[in-house]
Amino acid sequence: MSIATFGEIMLRLKSPGQERLLQTPSFEATFGGSEGNVAVALSRLGLPARFITVLPENQIGRECLRELSFHGVDVSAIKFKKGRMGIYFFENGANQRPSNVIYDRENSALWKILPGDIDWRESLKDQTWFHVSGITPALSKNCADETVKAARMATEKGLTVSFDLNYRAKLWNYGVEARVVMSEIAQYADILIGNEEDYQKSLGIEGPSAVGGKIDIDAYQAMCERALRRYPKAKMAAVTLRESFSADSNDWSGMVVLREERFVSRTYHIADIVDRVGAGDSFSAGLIYGLSTLKDVGAALEYAVALSCLKHSIQGDFALVEKGEVEKLLGGDSSGRVQR
Amino acid sequence: MSIATFGEIMLRLKSPGQERLLQTPSFEATFGGSEGNVAVALSRLGLPARFITVLPENQIGRECLRELSFHGVDVSAIKFKKGRMGIYFFENGANQRPSNVIYDRENSALWKILPGDIDWRESLKDQTWFHVSGITPALSKNCADETVKAARMATEKGLTVSFDLNYRAKLWNYGVEARVVMSEIAQYADILIGNEEDYQKSLGIEGPSAVGGKIDIDAYQAMCERALRRYPKAKMAAVTLRESFSADSNDWSGMVVLREERFVSRTYHIADIVDRVGAGDSFSAGLIYGLSTLKDVGAALEYAVALSCLKHSIQGDFALVEKGEVEKLLGGDSSGRVQR
Amino acid sequence: MSIATFGEIMLRLKSPGQERLLQTPSFEATFGGSEGNVAVALSRLGLPARFITVLPENQIGRECLRELSFHGVDVSAIKFKKGRMGIYFFENGANQRPSNVIYDRENSALWKILPGDIDWRESLKDQTWFHVSGITPALSKNCADETVKAARMATEKGLTVSFDLNYRAKLWNYGVEARVVMSEIAQYADILIGNEEDYQKSLGIEGPSAVGGKIDIDAYQAMCERALRRYPKAKMAAVTLRESFSADSNDWSGMVVLREERFVSRTYHIADIVDRVGAGDSFSAGLIYGLSTLKDVGAALEYAVALSCLKHSIQGDFALVEKGEVEKLLGGDSSGRVQR
Amino acid sequence: MSIATFGEIMLRLKSPGQERLLQTPSFEATFGGSEGNVAVALSRLGLPARFITVLPENQIGRECLRELSFHGVDVSAIKFKKGRMGIYFFENGANQRPSNVIYDRENSALWKILPGDIDWRESLKDQTWFHVSGITPALSKNCADETVKAARMATEKGLTVSFDLNYRAKLWNYGVEARVVMSEIAQYADILIGNEEDYQKSLGIEGPSAVGGKIDIDAYQAMCERALRRYPKAKMAAVTLRESFSADSNDWSGMVVLREERFVSRTYHIADIVDRVGAGDSFSAGLIYGLSTLKDVGAALEYAVALSCLKHSIQGDFALVEKGEVEKLLGGDSSGRVQR
Amino acid sequence: MSIATFGEIMLRLKSPGQERLLQTPSFEATFGGSEGNVAVALSRLGLPARFITVLPENQIGRECLRELSFHGVDVSAIKFKKGRMGIYFFENGANQRPSNVIYDRENSALWKILPGDIDWRESLKDQTWFHVSGITPALSKNCADETVKAARMATEKGLTVSFDLNYRAKLWNYGVEARVVMSEIAQYADILIGNEEDYQKSLGIEGPSAVGGKIDIDAYQAMCERALRRYPKAKMAAVTLRESFSADSNDWSGMVVLREERFVSRTYHIADIVDRVGAGDSFSAGLIYGLSTLKDVGAALEYAVALSCLKHSIQGDFALVEKGEVEKLLGGDSSGRVQR
Amino acid sequence: MSIATFGEIMLRLKSPGQERLLQTPSFEATFGGSEGNVAVALSRLGLPARFITVLPENQIGRECLRELSFHGVDVSAIKFKKGRMGIYFFENGANQRPSNVIYDRENSALWKILPGDIDWRESLKDQTWFHVSGITPALSKNCADETVKAARMATEKGLTVSFDLNYRAKLWNYGVEARVVMSEIAQYADILIGNEEDYQKSLGIEGPSAVGGKIDIDAYQAMCERALRRYPKAKMAAVTLRESFSADSNDWSGMVVLREERFVSRTYHIADIVDRVGAGDSFSAGLIYGLSTLKDVGAALEYAVALSCLKHSIQGDFALVEKGEVEKLLGGDSSGRVQR
Repeated sequence: MSIATFGEIMLRLKSPGQERLLQTPSFEATFGGSEGNVAVALSRLGLPARFITVLPENQIGRECLRELSFHGVDVSAIKFKKGRMGIYFFENGANQRPSNVIYDRENSALWKILPGDIDWRESLKDQTWFHVSGITPALSKNCADETVKAARMATEKGLTVSFDLNYRAKLWNYGVEARVVMSEIAQYADILIGNEEDYQKSLGIEGPSAVGGKIDIDAYQAMCERALRRYPKAKMAAVTLRESFSADSNDWSGMVVLREERFVSRTYHIADIVDRVGAGDSFSAGLIYGLSTLKDVGAALEYAVALSCLKHSIQGDFALVEKGEVEKLLGGDSSGRVQR
Repeated sequence: MSIATFGEIMLRLKSPGQERLLQTPSFEATFGGSEGNVAVALSRLGLPARFITVLPENQIGRECLRELSFHGVDVSAIKFKKGRMGIYFFENGANQRPSNVIYDRENSALWKILPGDIDWRESLKDQTWFHVSGITPALSKNCADETVKAARMATEKGLTVSFDLNYRAKLWNYGVEARVVMSEIAQYADILIGNEEDYQKSLGIEGPSAVGGKIDIDAYQAMCERALRRYPKAKMAAVTLRESFSADSNDWSGMVVLREERFVSRTYHIADIVDRVGAGDSFSAGLIYGLSTLKDVGAALEYAVALSCLKHSIQGDFALVEKGEVEKLLGGDSSGRVQR
Repeated sequence: MSIATFGEIMLRLKSPGQERLLQTPSFEATFGGSEGNVAVALSRLGLPARFITVLPENQIGRECLRELSFHGVDVSAIKFKKGRMGIYFFENGANQRPSNVIYDRENSALWKILPGDIDWRESLKDQTWFHVSGITPALSKNCADETVKAARMATEKGLTVSFDLNYRAKLWNYGVEARVVMSEIAQYADILIGNEEDYQKSLGIEGPSAVGGKIDIDAYQAMCERALRRYPKAKMAAVTLRESFSADSNDWSGMVVLREERFVSRTYHIADIVDRVGAGDSFSAGLIYGLSTLKDVGAALEYAVALSCLKHSIQGDFALVEKGEVEKLLGGDSSGRVQR
Repeated sequence: MSIATFGEIMLRLKSPGQERLLQTPSFEATFGGSEGNVAVALSRLGLPARFITVLPENQIGRECLRELSFHGVDVSAIKFKKGRMGIYFFENGANQRPSNVIYDRENSALWKILPGDIDWRESLKDQTWFHVSGITPALSKNCADETVKAARMATEKGLTVSFDLNYRAKLWNYGVEARVVMSEIAQYADILIGNEEDYQKSLGIEGPSAVGGKIDIDAYQAMCERALRRYPKAKMAAVTLRESFSADSNDWSGMVVLREERFVSRTYHIADIVDRVGAGDSFSAGLIYGLSTLKDVGAALEYAVALSCLKHSIQGDFALVEKGEVEKLLGGDSSGRVQR
Repeated sequence: MSIATFGEIMLRLKSPGQERLLQTPSFEATFGGSEGNVAVALSRLGLPARFITVLPENQIGRECLRELSFHGVDVSAIKFKKGRMGIYFFENGANQRPSNVIYDRENSALWKILPGDIDWRESLKDQTWFHVSGITPALSKNCADETVKAARMATEKGLTVSFDLNYRAKLWNYGVEARVVMSEIAQYADILIGNEEDYQKSLGIEGPSAVGGKIDIDAYQAMCERALRRYPKAKMAAVTLRESFSADSNDWSGMVVLREERFVSRTYHIADIVDRVGAGDSFSAGLIYGLSTLKDVGAALEYAVALSCLKHSIQGDFALVEKGEVEKLLGGDSSGRVQR
Repeated sequence: MSIATFGEIMLRLKSPGQERLLQTPSFEATFGGSEGNVAVALSRLGLPARFITVLPENQIGRECLRELSFHGVDVSAIKFKKGRMGIYFFENGANQRPSNVIYDRENSALWKILPGDIDWRESLKDQTWFHVSGITPALSKNCADETVKAARMATEKGLTVSFDLNYRAKLWNYGVEARVVMSEIAQYADILIGNEEDYQKSLGIEGPSAVGGKIDIDAYQAMCERALRRYPKAKMAAVTLRESFSADSNDWSGMVVLREERFVSRTYHIADIVDRVGAGDSFSAGLIYGLSTLKDVGAALEYAVALSCLKHSIQGDFALVEKGEVEKLLGGDSSGRVQR
């Protein structure tokens, strides 16, 4: 079993603590990006995971490759090209002040990917699962084309395909409509993942409002069912459910809708968020892990929610969590008592 | 339109994070002080703001001037003299442990201000508003004399005068009674600002207790009305309303009382305070901004409360907040969701 | 009056903030260990406190001694021997992720203590109180033997003996059963201290469950009474009561059971824990301080709970708290308002 | 008198101390870029300096503007456009390991400058001097065109024009030959500045080798005279002379060649370089300052060399040096004794 | 081709900059240890390198494994066991104050290695070179036994065996004489490596004094020839030559003595050492790299000296150097000029 | 034997590394001041040392007391009074840029010392040596008076009195001439200490120039002899000899002149100064230590020079050096080789 993911990994430049960008003259510098986050999380949990991307042929790109190796990710399918590393600046919010992301990823090495840069036949060889998110096709026409190509080939080769819709308002600047491209990719997906906004803005599927009020679980289910109806290959539509009280305090849960059944997870109250970036990616990773190893959809969902709940306590994009920690939380121990 | 403020700006030496003073051998070093904070906040919001003070003629004083320029403040009326920079040591509290301030500002350059050091006619030229707080007259006899002189001249020249009462128990050590001096200045104020303690300790006006229990809004109104009765020039008495559950968690709102009317703002629950020093100053800045640009007292009050709510999420004395951020919060979005 | 405590003090290596161990390549390096924490807390409160231990004869050991002197602890009874400093690695939890401790204290200088290394007659001279915890006998056979010897001699010399049961699942690896050794020491104790788990795992006394649900105060009382019945010398059994909602948020209180009477303290809600390691030790220190200076058991308990409540707001093992701060909290001011 | 400079200012991301890039996960983040460095240095010395550029309309660009204001630079001619901030990554060398720069400045806001973005007539108004370097035309065709336009208009308006040749091998990637563009701009220059490599690679003027051996001052003079012959408007060709023993240890001096005369400066041995980036820019600034205020070419050269010598002791691109410090060094005191 | 190395890798705890241990409460935390350093350096240069060791089965041990993967080292032969991680504390010297190492490595996981823990047949499979140093047998009897076993089997399997004598006065505490064990291992070595002290203290071979005066190259040659005479299998004896002027300033070169020939390298003056720990290890790595890829002993020696010269400019145990950087220095460019 | 010293200890606020003051918003915060430095150095070497001063009764003052206890200094004679802590800002130089000190010590607790604040009879009890420097009387009239009183009483009680002349141009602002006060104190001194500038500016004794050229040792001797002639009680005049090549690189040695004899020490070349503040104080401490324990003036001088040479390698005011380290350097080992 091995999971291949395809997308962009960026240099993440974060101001220290909860400072505003450049409030003091330093950045915390790590790496992150949706599909890379999924690969790292899976690898940390012990599943073989391959990350497919194009990195710039310079010191920053090589450090990124090493970082992925650090986490055990299979980097054999990564291509190096002349170009730049995508960057995102990140400012951590607090209370009523939201976190903010400034993308500086235009014209990155991946952005300019050309047909043939990735040998898809080789890259998907021996893989059993292919995962991609809506961020990759949002980058550029070239990226969209490669994503479609990869999803199609994965389908042909019989891999399970999961597709995290991941709508990003600050992307999709290259002149096509998100829904057109996203719908094309969604046709290849066995599993759709997203929050209420993703389903609506990426696929144009009607659903509940993202902001305010109590979560109406039936409205979410209806939205998922609409998605399953529109994309006949898909067996499962998953939704992350976040109630955002402030930048620090959220409720977090998830739902999976099958054609005949739905599962709603336990809800975690997360009162002191350390870093919520990558939470959705760790939900995807947890779901893939669960579906691959647990064989029970409900249990897989709980795994996804528990892993991504723990991600909120960890600085950086990556879910630096061990299997035992997820299991402990699944076992009901969320008291946070010191282990000694 | 331009707002002039007068007061002391200090070197602020804070222990890192929530450490006790000198628990580790380093200080975070920024600048701050009530009226300077107001000037910086206004300038960041886009209003012309001039800060009037005396700085020491050394490297520390010159850095302070540069810092004010960094934030766009008009520093043309600042005078340099031989002397020292006032300092305040700051230790951030947590839970039941309060934050603590140690003043080391005696004998600062401003403290020893002499008549003529500031050319008030020149300094208030082309200004439309004059703001000062009760901290300036609390420093020394010299400072009190200059404050009275400035307030009187501002009145004569037809500037709007706002007066933040800002009572500080650790000051007022030079042998006069706060109430005597404060009352003299209050006679020139168009707008009085303070919390319940300020009104009582600075002006001797009866009011509700500062600690414990629910806020009795009518008692606050009555206090304001007493103030308006005593100071006939004042058109408006504003109060900040803080319910302090712990060093980290407060409720925050405000009220404005006119001679005929009162406005009570929305309340914000701020559960993970980053830094509450300067919150009152950003309330003053927001009120000045609102009254200057919005022409609706209720809206101005909401602006003041929203800006100062956001200040609680920002490290340091200064409200590093942009107009758009205040407007977003005023628009009802306090969910703290990541912007990307 | 002087309090002697005996145990191990370690080098504490903590990852910065809430990072995972080695997530970034640095450690915050301080010192800590149950009985040393008690001595430091007492000394900071103004009581003479002597710490008895064996330190390694190297630069790390000497720095540790200096650190104890820094806090005013009497270090005259500390012995230096060839060996190593015990270490503990500490990772601060957040939300549902618990804090974690990795002990690396085997074969420390104290671990290998030999009869005669400490001259107990000399070390307990002029002391009025002897305090030890269940950690010391959990280290090694040698440590257990010395603990028994010390407790016996303290009893013979008429010192008050307090015994914090402090059960540590990751210790007790040298082949004896905890209950056997602990029971022997408990016979010398005038005061037993612990949480519900300590009483059960250390002494085998039946009691309420540590996890989940509301605290059943009568069940705790019953447990204490069982302990008092079993150990006739003991006059008092104290319990710390922690309701752990997450790694950041706990309720904290305490109870003292005498033969005829029980006292239950006020409960503090601690919503933003800075560091809870050493909270139990500061409870012990506060109880010793209270019983030594206040002469009213209920007041002593409140002192213990207030001091240890404040400890949760302080980074590191040590309760860097001044008397006035405890008294302010005891006086009812827990609002965390800035002191200026 | 006021000096206008035109060019790109970038976000500078430096690994801490002498670490390799990303050896630890943090960057020191400041701003820098040749012509901006000149403006800052001049402003710190007390001369009015205006910096002309295009900045991205985002938080990073706005912080950059504030930073320039901090140093007193006139920012009124800066234009904001949608786009990105140029970045350069910097790794500080040591001993035999050279410092290294990775440019990530393609497609920056300035890079894409369009005719009309800068209103040159307005921007050069009331200016007496125009300074630009060979970096600006090396960025893009658009930048080259604007540089030519600016230099021509400055000449027409009677400003003194100084041109720092500043050859950068990692730029000039847009398909024209450096010499063609550079020669066109050089025709407008009153003063040419550069090291031996700059004259050769930028203008194709024959000169001595950059590496190894003793400096042959006559060969440098001959090179300058060739330049003066080729560009009849130029009155002066200046050269910086660096003997590089290692990344930490250099000898530093300069020469100015007029049509009839040459001046060779004192040589400084700089054995513990803190940061040599921006040394050439501070030489330009010092020369401009000297020629503007001292009216003696030899003295101006010594000023330029002394200021840029001191720059080597300061972290970052900017010469944070005060007039008095340059004068003290010019007065012969290079002993580095503590001032107290 | 693949190089296997065997030894201990430790957690390295260094005080920041040139501070004394615990002068401020933090440690820089990396990993290092002679044979691990060799594997990392080789891997960074692009040669396959396998590191064989025993790591503790805890979070620290797992991070160490990841760190080795980060650098591309083959970790497939690493065994995890219950135990502790060896630690070394490191204080960087300056001027006349030497750097200092405190070992805290007793009873580490490797220390207690048992026969069978490492499957040598499997571990040396497909390897062409085996490298070990005198530190491994200095740890414990168990380690010495395994080293002998490994060296013997490597010889039997036809691997090239290199042996860095690496004498450590603070080790060899388990009751055997260094010379006896070292001589046994030396019999298997094809290549001996060391400085003058190592040859004398490890093997008892007479040689020149380590301290003071000019290096008498013939005396070093004579020492090497004595070694080659005593160990008939050895084809080559290499020596590192360090003239230590102060903790910051050294001359560095090397010599290789064959049975018929000697090579003396170029000397580098390293005036501002960043970190000299691991210099000898990078010399070994460079020699292995050179002998494996260059096929000219003189060139291999120059490679070893150039790589280890560059190591002095890099913080930490590891030679984070790329092939191109060594080649640039070998090409004669040691001027340290900025690359841009 | 016990040495008492009297003077001011300040909070030292240093910008990080070699940054300019406030270049980044943080300060390294330690304590230091001439006579306190002497006490700390002596205590670290193992001699009983008592520091006599007045500290402010606040958190900063109490931390300072603890810091002195940390180093083993006897703090029993320290008086607490209402007031402020003296501060000095420190910027570390590099190359041609000198280090700079900004004093902010006016009106400190010690500055305002009143007769009776220190009970001199009690404070000098059981002391065998009294040391003071020219800084103390330079602070204020009150300080000068107490210094005279203390020196007189020490003389009467038969203590050895050493007097470090320590001229500070930035002090002596209270309206008396340095020479008058200094001469009065010098009459009580058994040992005078200073550099060439101190003797001239403090006592008006003719001597060689401080800057440039080779040291003319006979001129220094003549200066010392003049001093001994003028102050008949003095048995010894010591001089520190510094040749300052740059802020980083100095030669350092010393001389002692008796009435019949002179001793000139070995010279140390210190090429990479870490921190030279406090070097003179550690010379005084070394001389006191040497004269107290070695009974050979030449050996004592060498001890003083070796200790103060090592001080240059240590960050902060205090000479954190152990006896063994001085002895190693005295034994001739200045090679800085790693100890392992």
